[in-house]
Amino acid sequence: MNEPTLPSRILENAVTEIAKLPGIGRKTALRLALHLLSRDKEVGLKLAEAIHALVRDVKTCRVCHNISESDLCDICSDPRRDASRLCVVEDVRDVLAIENTGQFRGKYHVLGGLINPMAGIGPSDIAVADLPERIQTTGVQELIIALPSTAEGDTTAFFVFKKTKDLSIQITTLARGVAIGEELEYADEITLARSIQYRIPFETSIKSL
Amino acid sequence: MNEPTLPSRILENAVTEIAKLPGIGRKTALRLALHLLSRDKEVGLKLAEAIHALVRDVKTCRVCHNISESDLCDICSDPRRDASRLCVVEDVRDVLAIENTGQFRGKYHVLGGLINPMAGIGPSDIAVADLPERIQTTGVQELIIALPSTAEGDTTAFFVFKKTKDLSIQITTLARGVAIGEELEYADEITLARSIQYRIPFETSIKSL
Repeated sequence: MNEPTLPSRILENAVTEIAKLPGIGRKTALRLALHLLSRDKEVGLKLAEAIHALVRDVKTCRVCHNISESDLCDICSDPRRDASRLCVVEDVRDVLAIENTGQFRGKYHVLGGLINPMAGIGPSDIAVADLPERIQTTGVQELIIALPSTAEGDTTAFFVFKKTKDLSIQITTLARGVAIGEELEYADEITLARSIQYRIPFETSIKSL
Repeated sequence: MNEPTLPSRILENAVTEIAKLPGIGRKTALRLALHLLSRDKEVGLKLAEAIHALVRDVKTCRVCHNISESDLCDICSDPRRDASRLCVVEDVRDVLAIENTGQFRGKYHVLGGLINPMAGIGPSDIAVADLPERIQTTGVQELIIALPSTAEGDTTAFFVFKKTKDLSIQITTLARGVAIGEELEYADEITLARSIQYRIPFETSIKSL
């Protein structure tokens, strides 16, 4: 079907801008714009103001690159957090996911992306250059590489490892294995193989519960 | 999984507002907000301004309720459009879809919704009250009811029919049948039955191509 011509240039512009968001095509953008038009003006005005405030006022922490409203984020400025453990993650959502487990009291280093040569993203496009200095000046003893188990995640993890392996710290990575609640027969072969290869003492598994 | 607590109230507010859009949950809203933060500020500012302009400047036409930047929409103010044929549709997207076919040169009446008692939407919630007067004062000869073939569409169509049947105009509705390019074996039973019941002379079908 051809693209219908919209009856208003203002609507056309709104649809174009909304359709720039990831995962939102022109059809969905039009549906969202018409939804805003069909509601109380207040709904759309509040949305516009919230987005405006978001890009105007939210920054990234100068130390860990997590999002923050001030120069230093809440985690970096919290003296109760264990500065000897540093967790390297891809993005802010990973910080939220790990924080949500309540299992980690160290600090984070948010790369803001993964090395992906096919997409033209190299080491200089992610926040990795300042990592060795941060480790050396803040007394980090363990670096936990918590990156996704994908080609890009593995490439990036290896790059981080290469950059930090001579710093006389312990470098660890996330355990991979069969998920809690998952039936063995549905786990993929490689994951199951890994979880056998890196099996842990039963008593350890009880203690971690 | 529990909802992670966001590290910024401004981000929290943006996520809440974005998640009010139809079909967008909190997870997607967070992904969109973080996308805006990871891009040039300009992208987010343009989006905010486009939405602001949309709700501030786009109105609905006082005659047909289509969206318009002025009091009277482009279709209603176009003297070349055939005022004797009036097409009743659910919303603006239907106007765009019909305009896109290039097959209709009449005018529209946009209801802005369908009667849906289960959702508490009655006749007074859609733009149907002004329809009889519009028909009588503008010389409409044919009213084409072009509503979706759903329970709500049929209810609304019947309501529009009841309101207009005594106005000595012709009332028609869209042909229902097997779609162009569709295999008969995949058409649903009711549609196929309808297309047999309301079959048309072969010569007519050739002419319409």
